[in-house]
Amino acid sequence: MAETIKNIGVLTSGGDSPGMNAAIRAVVRTALYYNLEITGIMRGYEGMITGDMFKMDRKSVANIIQRGGTILKTARSDDFRTKEGRERAYEQLKKFNVDALVVIGGDGTFTGASVFLDEFDVPILGLPGTIDNDLAGTDYTIGYDTAINTVVNAVDKIRDTAESHDRLFFVEVMGRDSGLIALRSGIGVGAEAILIPESKTDAGHLFKRLEEGRKDKASKIVIVAEGDDSGDVFEIAERVKEKFPNYDTRVSILGHIQRGGSPTCGDRVLASRLGVAAVESLMAGQKGEMVGLVNGQIAFTPFKHAIKHISEVNQGLLKIVEILSL
Amino acid sequence: MAETIKNIGVLTSGGDSPGMNAAIRAVVRTALYYNLEITGIMRGYEGMITGDMFKMDRKSVANIIQRGGTILKTARSDDFRTKEGRERAYEQLKKFNVDALVVIGGDGTFTGASVFLDEFDVPILGLPGTIDNDLAGTDYTIGYDTAINTVVNAVDKIRDTAESHDRLFFVEVMGRDSGLIALRSGIGVGAEAILIPESKTDAGHLFKRLEEGRKDKASKIVIVAEGDDSGDVFEIAERVKEKFPNYDTRVSILGHIQRGGSPTCGDRVLASRLGVAAVESLMAGQKGEMVGLVNGQIAFTPFKHAIKHISEVNQGLLKIVEILSL
Amino acid sequence: MAETIKNIGVLTSGGDSPGMNAAIRAVVRTALYYNLEITGIMRGYEGMITGDMFKMDRKSVANIIQRGGTILKTARSDDFRTKEGRERAYEQLKKFNVDALVVIGGDGTFTGASVFLDEFDVPILGLPGTIDNDLAGTDYTIGYDTAINTVVNAVDKIRDTAESHDRLFFVEVMGRDSGLIALRSGIGVGAEAILIPESKTDAGHLFKRLEEGRKDKASKIVIVAEGDDSGDVFEIAERVKEKFPNYDTRVSILGHIQRGGSPTCGDRVLASRLGVAAVESLMAGQKGEMVGLVNGQIAFTPFKHAIKHISEVNQGLLKIVEILSL
Amino acid sequence: MAETIKNIGVLTSGGDSPGMNAAIRAVVRTALYYNLEITGIMRGYEGMITGDMFKMDRKSVANIIQRGGTILKTARSDDFRTKEGRERAYEQLKKFNVDALVVIGGDGTFTGASVFLDEFDVPILGLPGTIDNDLAGTDYTIGYDTAINTVVNAVDKIRDTAESHDRLFFVEVMGRDSGLIALRSGIGVGAEAILIPESKTDAGHLFKRLEEGRKDKASKIVIVAEGDDSGDVFEIAERVKEKFPNYDTRVSILGHIQRGGSPTCGDRVLASRLGVAAVESLMAGQKGEMVGLVNGQIAFTPFKHAIKHISEVNQGLLKIVEILSL
Repeated sequence: MAETIKNIGVLTSGGDSPGMNAAIRAVVRTALYYNLEITGIMRGYEGMITGDMFKMDRKSVANIIQRGGTILKTARSDDFRTKEGRERAYEQLKKFNVDALVVIGGDGTFTGASVFLDEFDVPILGLPGTIDNDLAGTDYTIGYDTAINTVVNAVDKIRDTAESHDRLFFVEVMGRDSGLIALRSGIGVGAEAILIPESKTDAGHLFKRLEEGRKDKASKIVIVAEGDDSGDVFEIAERVKEKFPNYDTRVSILGHIQRGGSPTCGDRVLASRLGVAAVESLMAGQKGEMVGLVNGQIAFTPFKHAIKHISEVNQGLLKIVEILSL
Repeated sequence: MAETIKNIGVLTSGGDSPGMNAAIRAVVRTALYYNLEITGIMRGYEGMITGDMFKMDRKSVANIIQRGGTILKTARSDDFRTKEGRERAYEQLKKFNVDALVVIGGDGTFTGASVFLDEFDVPILGLPGTIDNDLAGTDYTIGYDTAINTVVNAVDKIRDTAESHDRLFFVEVMGRDSGLIALRSGIGVGAEAILIPESKTDAGHLFKRLEEGRKDKASKIVIVAEGDDSGDVFEIAERVKEKFPNYDTRVSILGHIQRGGSPTCGDRVLASRLGVAAVESLMAGQKGEMVGLVNGQIAFTPFKHAIKHISEVNQGLLKIVEILSL
Repeated sequence: MAETIKNIGVLTSGGDSPGMNAAIRAVVRTALYYNLEITGIMRGYEGMITGDMFKMDRKSVANIIQRGGTILKTARSDDFRTKEGRERAYEQLKKFNVDALVVIGGDGTFTGASVFLDEFDVPILGLPGTIDNDLAGTDYTIGYDTAINTVVNAVDKIRDTAESHDRLFFVEVMGRDSGLIALRSGIGVGAEAILIPESKTDAGHLFKRLEEGRKDKASKIVIVAEGDDSGDVFEIAERVKEKFPNYDTRVSILGHIQRGGSPTCGDRVLASRLGVAAVESLMAGQKGEMVGLVNGQIAFTPFKHAIKHISEVNQGLLKIVEILSL
Repeated sequence: MAETIKNIGVLTSGGDSPGMNAAIRAVVRTALYYNLEITGIMRGYEGMITGDMFKMDRKSVANIIQRGGTILKTARSDDFRTKEGRERAYEQLKKFNVDALVVIGGDGTFTGASVFLDEFDVPILGLPGTIDNDLAGTDYTIGYDTAINTVVNAVDKIRDTAESHDRLFFVEVMGRDSGLIALRSGIGVGAEAILIPESKTDAGHLFKRLEEGRKDKASKIVIVAEGDDSGDVFEIAERVKEKFPNYDTRVSILGHIQRGGSPTCGDRVLASRLGVAAVESLMAGQKGEMVGLVNGQIAFTPFKHAIKHISEVNQGLLKIVEILSL
């Protein structure tokens, strides 16, 4: 690969998240600001293999900062898991004169980037684009702030009807391996209880609250993370129903609305900062790392560390749920 | 009952809908404007039976016009279906000197009101408060406009992720016996197809669109009304998946978010107009009717006619879906 | 011009309004559905004169139904007011084989269309695209529903701070010659009073309310239409301040946010219906008319009548403000 | 004052900010959780002087976490600036058995608290409740995240109309002495330039951008902080108009909508964490400090330091505006 970077390729991969477009915009504009060329790659690694790439300019990213989704689209690529697939991808990069990459996504994205970098020594930096906030090396991932606000707005609506009927709602939110969406949005909606995979004790807390609440008829909201091992949200609601038959229970699964929507200001600013930093850092010779924000400062974490899921949650936040759900 | 009305009771009953609070506010303020007393009855007919009522004033309804749900709460009442329950309700009304009623709800609410009026000759008028828009005698029910906007905003988010992944989404919306939420929100989101109970032919239209779309990979949204007899949304998605295995399909059930949220301007104005008209009409001696808005004018429909579900949908709107999903 | 229409031009002109994109989409898709060609004209009549036109296809209007503004842009055209300008426009239409037009805009748009049609006999139909709702021949214009909801959402925020401080807010909304935005949004926010050009008596009502309110310290919202002849919103606030010095008054001018934003479901459905009807009616030989919706039915109004501003407002709605601001 | 705290008073003072209710809720619930009494004080120090206080319970703060404004209301108090006023306030606290305070507000609030604490040795802790984010000792103040999102959503609407007309908009945002709202929201909306009091060079950057933009007609957004010393937003627009007469310029002042609205998830979580920490820290004997969040951890700052306005802005963020507005 070239000593000096002249042409940066940018792609989004894995599940989409709000703010990916703001990140793409930042990467494109920064590259142009420093007189580099910039190449958009469609559908993640898939477009790298098939050569679905195009030269981007200032206007390619006009008026996208406020849009959910990703204009470069995203996909999973089985071919990129094969040596042959990655070789084809490398040939395409050479053909399009792309000599460095910014990949925006989550752990699968960085795993692929890590392998590719080891094999072909193309400088790559990653940006954390996922609603789950489950990457080490950044306080927040791009999309997380939007997702928790989407949950909060949806549950605010559900509370209207919960209150009118004095119902107990179980609301399932995304986060297959991580309760971070559940935790913060649960505090945000003033949930009665939060059930997350990282904590075993929260079901007990829930039962205690419901026990107390029997005399005091009122609506309650329980936030359940997808991946909680108490079982899925319907099983939990069923168990509660058996134990507390006088509660009028309902289940709501928020689903894919959590992935979309116009990004919050927080996600737009985060994506902009990280996108600028990624290009400047590639120019300065960095590679093989995720660019994140830790305590308000740009921070770099090797791909291999970034993808280690955080298994602990802030115990202080869990305690807050207990105190405030009084 | 008194010849001249002096004290109006107001209640909400059945499923809650956004705008019920605006309607309550209008009833309360109008009664006070005309120097009547106004009594709030909690939890629909249940509170009438148990005497859960209180005198309302101007401040009781301050700052509620923008709130979803209903400050008077709502419930189903099995007791009110019995003669004995209704007798107790009548006694309570006498005790609280309530000599007329405004009941806000849907068909169950009006059925109860109709029986009660026949038995005890208490003047009652009804306001159409339901998100389903399935009552005869009003162009729109209070809550419908908010519900379709909630659907449209949610599906706008789903489209972001659908597009990023080129997915086919099946989105289930409320409307157990009626496709009216599906129909308008489907046009509003630019749906590929709409499956509603009132139309048998729409699945064929969907298959035709999907057939054509095979060459032209792109995201698509199909709106499915809860009550469609093609089966539930998962069955429909399954059948499509079998027939068109190359589509990446997903299902999303919007659920209870459709019942909540701050009412739209349209619902607030509708609720305000109908609430004013209800009180003025009770004073003028009307009873046994739902107060609606037809072609921009206040219209009255006997309870027995209002509750007949509309079984036909606007064929012109169905045609529009077909044309615009091109 | 050709006997049978083969190629329809579409443009947006005058002030933009939310839903214009949904209308463009409907016109384009309907034309294609009926195997016509469709030509997009940029910046209203200006692009017609300069030949800034392009052939549109299905994809030109993909994913725009939810966007505010207009992808065809809009502008005022001084040249189109001259005979020479219109002649050049006509030459360009011939050059691009455009043999009919759908123009989306307000009174200026229709005035231009009317003159052009008289001179060159190009079939033209108009769609009412303006937030002001001030055209005869349609119950609602495209954009009005979105604008009043934008006002309501903004004033809901202002009320939060008004209440916290017990302040009296004067909020100016758009509507240079018409109080229709003020009237409906004023009911929607539960305004204390509404000042609109169509009514001389409302300032008196305001003073009466303020007089009564002196003992009862609380926040109040007064909605003022831009064009009210009591003076501009600062003058009104000043006069109130002099008369009632103990009120803590503030002024807020909502301004251009009222023109933008994602259109409501109502505006999207309205735009879709009118767009379909416009193309079908051009094919059926109609011209020189605005296509509107009256009492739920498509209605046609000659341009010359449509542009006559409605000078009367619904007195019933004004009365409702008085009753409910109690 | 009592050795052990038994009854905490809570008040909001100064300009209101979204999330104050979430903070009140957290203070109340935490006090009750630890079996303390909790007293609500109306209208800031004014209610302390007049004895406008009441005992709060769990239900006093039910269903308020999502509401803008403050249920305790807020006001400026001239009396509290006098020794006599503060003495009366102290008498009232004794009368109501309040032996510690949590005051929520900005620099004026903390200045008052500091003087009061010096004079009467009542333990007081402060929570940063202001949209301006201008206090030392916390990364974010309660309300700031909501305010920047309100700005971003409003400017997203303005951009719709700016783009449709190719206009140059000057949008004034709040921040009398601080450009922090302007800075982050400006990045969030993808502004062409940001004019803030902390930077003298940004007008030059704006002129450079406009110079370049002349050939390339398109919409542009410039965010202007209230307190920028280039003059008010109208003067700036006027100067640009003179220098670049071919731009079609408009001014919009966002005004008081920035103070209201339902708080974001971020503000609700921040308010909840700080509210819990304030009560726990009072119990642990702390006083005379503002409780903030620095790098994700609870941090304490003496009132005298907290109120020193931050005069420097993040130069990295300013540079990002320059790069991305390319």
